[in-house]
Formats: sequence, C-alpha cells, structure tokens
Amino acid sequence: MSYFDAASSAPLHPVARQALLAALDDGWADPARLYREGRKARMLLDAGREVAAEAVGCRPDELVFTTSGTRAVHTGIAGALAGRRRVGRHLIVSAVEHSSVLHSAESLVAAGGSATQVPVDRTGAVSARAYGEALRPDTALACLQSANHEVGTVQPVAEVAEVCRAAGVPLLVDAAQSLGWGPVEGAWSLLTASAHKWGGPAGVGLLAVRKGVRFATQGPVDERESGRSPGFENIPAIVAAAAALRAVRTEAAEEALRLRELTERIRARVPQLVPDVDVVGDPVRRLPGIVTFSCLYVDGETLLHELDRAGFSVSSGSSCTSSTLTPSHVLKAMGVLSEGNVRVSLPNGTTEEDVEQFLAVLPGAVAGVREKLGATAPMAAVKEDSLVVDALGKRCPIPVIELAKVIGDVPIGGTVRVLSDDEAARLDIPAWCEMRGQEYVGEEEGPAYVVRRTS
Amino acid sequence: MSYFDAASSAPLHPVARQALLAALDDGWADPARLYREGRKARMLLDAGREVAAEAVGCRPDELVFTTSGTRAVHTGIAGALAGRRRVGRHLIVSAVEHSSVLHSAESLVAAGGSATQVPVDRTGAVSARAYGEALRPDTALACLQSANHEVGTVQPVAEVAEVCRAAGVPLLVDAAQSLGWGPVEGAWSLLTASAHKWGGPAGVGLLAVRKGVRFATQGPVDERESGRSPGFENIPAIVAAAAALRAVRTEAAEEALRLRELTERIRARVPQLVPDVDVVGDPVRRLPGIVTFSCLYVDGETLLHELDRAGFSVSSGSSCTSSTLTPSHVLKAMGVLSEGNVRVSLPNGTTEEDVEQFLAVLPGAVAGVREKLGATAPMAAVKEDSLVVDALGKRCPIPVIELAKVIGDVPIGGTVRVLSDDEAARLDIPAWCEMRGQEYVGEEEGPAYVVRRTS
Repeated sequence: MSYFDAASSAPLHPVARQALLAALDDGWADPARLYREGRKARMLLDAGREVAAEAVGCRPDELVFTTSGTRAVHTGIAGALAGRRRVGRHLIVSAVEHSSVLHSAESLVAAGGSATQVPVDRTGAVSARAYGEALRPDTALACLQSANHEVGTVQPVAEVAEVCRAAGVPLLVDAAQSLGWGPVEGAWSLLTASAHKWGGPAGVGLLAVRKGVRFATQGPVDERESGRSPGFENIPAIVAAAAALRAVRTEAAEEALRLRELTERIRARVPQLVPDVDVVGDPVRRLPGIVTFSCLYVDGETLLHELDRAGFSVSSGSSCTSSTLTPSHVLKAMGVLSEGNVRVSLPNGTTEEDVEQFLAVLPGAVAGVREKLGATAPMAAVKEDSLVVDALGKRCPIPVIELAKVIGDVPIGGTVRVLSDDEAARLDIPAWCEMRGQEYVGEEEGPAYVVRRTS
Repeated sequence: MSYFDAASSAPLHPVARQALLAALDDGWADPARLYREGRKARMLLDAGREVAAEAVGCRPDELVFTTSGTRAVHTGIAGALAGRRRVGRHLIVSAVEHSSVLHSAESLVAAGGSATQVPVDRTGAVSARAYGEALRPDTALACLQSANHEVGTVQPVAEVAEVCRAAGVPLLVDAAQSLGWGPVEGAWSLLTASAHKWGGPAGVGLLAVRKGVRFATQGPVDERESGRSPGFENIPAIVAAAAALRAVRTEAAEEALRLRELTERIRARVPQLVPDVDVVGDPVRRLPGIVTFSCLYVDGETLLHELDRAGFSVSSGSSCTSSTLTPSHVLKAMGVLSEGNVRVSLPNGTTEEDVEQFLAVLPGAVAGVREKLGATAPMAAVKEDSLVVDALGKRCPIPVIELAKVIGDVPIGGTVRVLSDDEAARLDIPAWCEMRGQEYVGEEEGPAYVVRRTS
C-alpha cells in the first residue's frame, strides 16, 4: 500500500510526533500568563518561532503562526490589501494559484476591487514580464506561488519579486509546496506556508510579513500572535511543526536527489507503458517529488478508484468530487489535457520498489477504465465528409472518446462536430487534437467543438 | 505545585491524549480525498462530529469545527449578522462577555453598525428583562455567555433565549466555560465553545448553527466544514477534543459536586483568613470550579507572582500584562473591587489537600504584598476637615492605599479628595467605600474622587 499524495498532506514526520508528545506535557497552558505553566508554554512558542523563522529566512518578529496555510493566505492577502488601500484595490495573481489565493481574489472583486490573473505557459510557469505587464498604478499586492501544487512547476519568484520591488508593489509568495525543500529566493514581502505539507501536524500555518510592509489585520481585534492570528495558540502543534521543518530541511538535499530520480523515472516510463498519455509540467524546473500526467479516454475519478483498489493513493486534478474547481483550473490555464489526470506526489522515504510497483499496476488500471468506458470499441464504418457526434449530457471523458471513435470515419479534410455541454470538453478536445495531430477548428454555438481530420 | 487556572486552559485530559495519539496515525490525510487514507480521516472526522454534536445537543450537520473558541465566536457573530443584514445591523451583548465577543461588537460598530451592552448586577448576572429592553426592530443578533469566565456566574440563558425567540432574534451562546459541565439549556440559535477549556487540545473550537438560522459565512470561499471554517481540518485534535468532551461529561455530575464543595470552602474561608477581601460572583448560580475574590491594598500582578513562587498558578482580572482589557471589564461592569483580584479555577481532579494548602499560603502572600506597598504603615496625625491626596501617576492599588491611610485623619463628616489618573481608581475607590462603610461622594475633574468619612 503506497501513499503518493504528499502534495495534499504528508504523513506526520517521526520528529514531529516526538516533539508533539513532549509539548503536550509542557505547552498546554496560556502563554500570555505569567505563572510557571504559562512561562513554559511561552518558551516553547518562542523556540518554535525562532526555528521556523530561521527556516523561512526572516526575523522571528516577522513571523506568526496561523491555524492553516489557507488562513495564512486569507489573512496575508486581506492584511496587505488593507495596508495599501490608499494606493488602490488591484490584486495580481497567477492563473495557477491555490484555491485559497484565487478565492481571496474573488472576495476582493466581490467587494469592489479588481484582480488580474497572469497567464502561464504550457509548463505552468509564469514570466516576470507578464507580471510586469499586469502591474498598474493602483496595484496593492501581487501573489505568486513558489511552485505549483498540481504539476510541480517551480515559478520564477526571484525575478517576479524584482519586477514588483521596482514598482513598489509587495509580493506575497505562497510557499506551501516548497518550504520543506528550502527557503524562497528573492525579495518577497510576505510569505505563507502550511505545516502538514512538510510532515508537520495539521493546524499550523505560517505567515511572514517583512518589516516595513504595510499591513492591517482585518476582523475583530485579538492580541495573540502580534494581532495577526486570533485564538488560543496551538503550541504543541507549533512546536511539532517547527521540529519537522528543521528535520526535513536536514534531509532535503539528499531526499531531493532521490525523489527527483524516481519522478524522472515516472515521467519517462509512463508514456512508454500507457498509450495516449500526456505528461504535464516543466520537465526541469520542478519540485522533486511531483509528477502529473493525463490519460486520454479515461475518467480521472474512476482511475483513482482503480489505483486505490490496487493500493496506490494518488490525486487527480480532474476528480470532480475532491475539489470545487473542476476541471482543474491549473490544467485549464496551461491549456493541457485534463481528462484522466493523475498527480503522483511522493512523500519523503518513498522507495524505488514502491515506484516500480506503481508503474507495473498503472497500465492495467488505465486499460481497465478505458475498456469500461468503451474507448476501445470498434468504430462505425460509415464514411462521410462531416459527422456530428451528440455527446450532450455526457461527462468527461465520453465526448473525447466519441470523437476518437469517429475521426477515422471522415476522410482527411473532413470535419467532426462534437456537441457537448461538459465544461471539460472545452479544454480536452483541443488538447486531444494537439496530441493526435488533428486540427482544432474552433467552438460553435451549441456548444459544438469542430475538429478537422488532417492525418 | 498546583495549577488553579483551568478557566484559562485545562491540562490535557488523559483520554484526549490517547485519542490524539491514535488519530495521529489514522487522521493525517485529507478527508476530502477518496482513497483509503482520506476515507479513514473522513470517518474519524465524522465520528468526532457526531460525538460533539451529541454533547452540544444539536444535529451533526449543524456543527462545524473551528480552530479555536475565539474563531468560533468571530465566525458565528459575523455570519449571523451578515445572514440578517436586511433586518438591520444592531447587536446585543452583555457587558461581561469574553473579549472575542466584545471585539466582534467593536468591529461591527467600526463598520457602521451599532451594539448595545446589557448591564449586569453585582453578581455579574444579566436579566432577561434587560435583554428584552435592548431589543430593537433592527436587532440582527443577541449574544450571551452561558457562564462568566472571570467570576463563574451562570447566566439565565433559557430565559434570555425565550425573550429573543419571541422577538424573532437569534441568540448566540458562548458556552466556552460551561460546555464540559453539560449542554446549554433553552432555545439558543448559535453556540460556540473551545476544546482546551474542557481538557481537549488547543486548536479546536465548535460552532453550532441551528437549521433555519440565517447564516452567511464571511471571507473568502472555502469548501471545508460546510464552508464555515476554512483550512485543512485538524482531525487528530478534533478526535481528541470530542473524546475529552465525552469523558468529562461522564465525570461531570460527581466532579461538579466535589469542586463545588472545594470552591465553597474557599468562598467561606478566604474572608476569615484575609482581612479586607471581597468575594465576588453569584454564591449559588455559579460554575462548580471558579471562585474569585479581590483584596484591598494589593496589586494583582504582584500577588500572582507571590502565589506563583509559592507553587500556585492563578489568574487575575486586574493583572495588567495578561490581558488587553485592563482593569477587568467584567469586575467593572459588576461595580465591584478590581484591585488585588484573584480568580481560582480548579481543574478536574483538584484535591482537598491542594485547596487547603492554597488557603494556608494565601494570607501570608497577601500580607507580604501589602507590606511591600506600605499599606500597613502608620497614618499621619494631622486632623483637618478636608484632605487632598495626590496619587497622580501612581498605579492601582496605590490610590486606594493612600486613601485608606488618611481617612482616619479627617473627622467624621470630613472629606478626602484622591487625585488619580489610574483607570482602576474609578472602579476601586467606590468599591472601597462600599466595603468600608464610607460615603462615595463622586468624581470631580482632575480626575479627583471625593470620599466622605461616615464612620
């Protein structure tokens, strides 16, 4: 049984478990109290802050603990926007940010502000130039992830930070996926992270705000955590999170090499083992442990279920019930295939054997799903210049499967119109055309997606 | 060494510790995921919710877990106000609520809404009639604690809920101090609580919203916890919190009797052992484990320090560095003495010996502080009809000590004017007069507090 979804949540690091147990005994009292138990709790909290600040690369008084990465993002964005309200209410985010960032942007727009989404290339990366173009005189804040959570692509944070700095705009970096691997380079202004991504416990996020960055915490006043994170501090979890961060950093260089070799193996072998697969994300500038691919003619959720039955826990950007953003806004922004999407994110300590077994199981799992969906059924023999496939009411990947079935039925130069009301078709039919060397003509009302056979 | 500050934070219950350890192994994955580890986490989360809902007396789908009691209050008040925005923006709170409620009210007022503070009597209790009088056509929400956190007085929640229900106004009950003892009676609409108050771990609060109560969560969208509590769920802590709640409820009846006897002993004995003491709070309608008293001519923080040195960890409503609301807004609203304030809140399992030892140590500690502050120094012999004591720039309890020193120097019928710019004097000089049978004439510009000697 292998857990390959570390990008969602990593198993608790043994060091975190030990630290948590110890701190349960000494860190349960109120650190604001002056008696013995309170002083002990305060010392643990201060020590945790120092360790975390060192790992982040900031001063301890620049860092507060929140209750999750999502809270850190919500608080960080709202506080930075409020701090620069006089400048304006424009926010820049990349199109592939975590939902907590995108939902914060939606909140701003709903309240009368404005937001610009910076596009990404097919690898999922933004460019510093695109951020520069998005900057406006009323831009209060820009946000960029350090690396993408769905495809692992590392973003050019230092370059974007430089562009923002030159314009006097603070940059908030969501470092949730990368902080365990190392500090974020470049002149960022705010940074957020989440402990359970690096093997810490749930319930701990980080928010660092550089001295000099204008910041006004929103919501009711509360004196804890410099007024930036209300509620009684969860000191045992904070201590465990800090201990785990230090531990994974110690192992990071070696583990990065090891996992990179394993994900490289998946990147190379999956297309050999499984037909009609698209490996997505930057092949070089990427996190060590994440590899993502999409399989034509496969429904992501069914494939996840098959892999789970075979003992592998992976995630999918096209799994409808595991996320509110469906199909994956990341894959959509990259313009790559979303159907049959699988994200493999290896936790520290994953062995070569685990990966080999996954590679042994995957082809059968994909073939099984394709067979169930009828993707391999024989094609109709009628030859016409133009065909219409009615896939209305049918969910991904059926529209693409129907298209693939009939494309051979029209002569070269002939067209197929796929009628589909499934949102994923808008993304997946063009992606299929690119993969199969067919021409995507465009979208017509209906909606209908027009494809011309060119080979 | 005895920890007598359970009302701030209770030590982790052994059952909570066990449950936490077990859930660390099975509850670290994302409960929104469909694979094995996610399903296990989801099952633990569902089980925790069922246990907590049963203890609260609501349906599981009415209850969400937040990251603290403070967050539950902030979220509950903001959501209920937004849900009834069409009705108006008026909020009713009692004058003795927890700071999270009062700060939420301040937030509302800062944003253009209005808030009414319902006064309390000298025991700290509100009346249903006063809530009825505070209701307005534009009242969106009323808030009331189930019992007071500083003096232990139990509030007439069921009566207030009935008054609110009749007016169609939802009532939010902050049950932080009482939920471990039993469910909240009456037709409340929203309820909040905090796990570390009942022996659960930090990092878990409860927010229950009855079906049919209009509620609109504020802030960026997040799908977790029915959209009411953003961020990755802290399932091990939730499981531990629920297990601890069930455990303390099982012990509650027996432990309540036992602790009530111990606090009754403190209530009765402290005034016999220590001169010039005022025991505050309702002698009957009170929580089992809390007893609060104030000592004339004593600085609360110094007394806490002395008691800490003697091995007793207690809290003080007049301790300036342990709270932002100084002097205690609770004691102020009750109109009782705040100087030398001590709150003793016994955790479950406190023994008779612990309490007897506290009673043995307390008189010497108070006497020591009084001696240091010069409260027992001989009085000046000059007799005049009217005296002015200049205590400007001097902090509590010095102004009252100076007053006590000279009151014998004026003849009966004569007056003493105490010049003081310490906020606590406004509360403590009238309280001293009441305790000593002298007449408090009133406040003059200066500010000066005028006292007439009557005995």
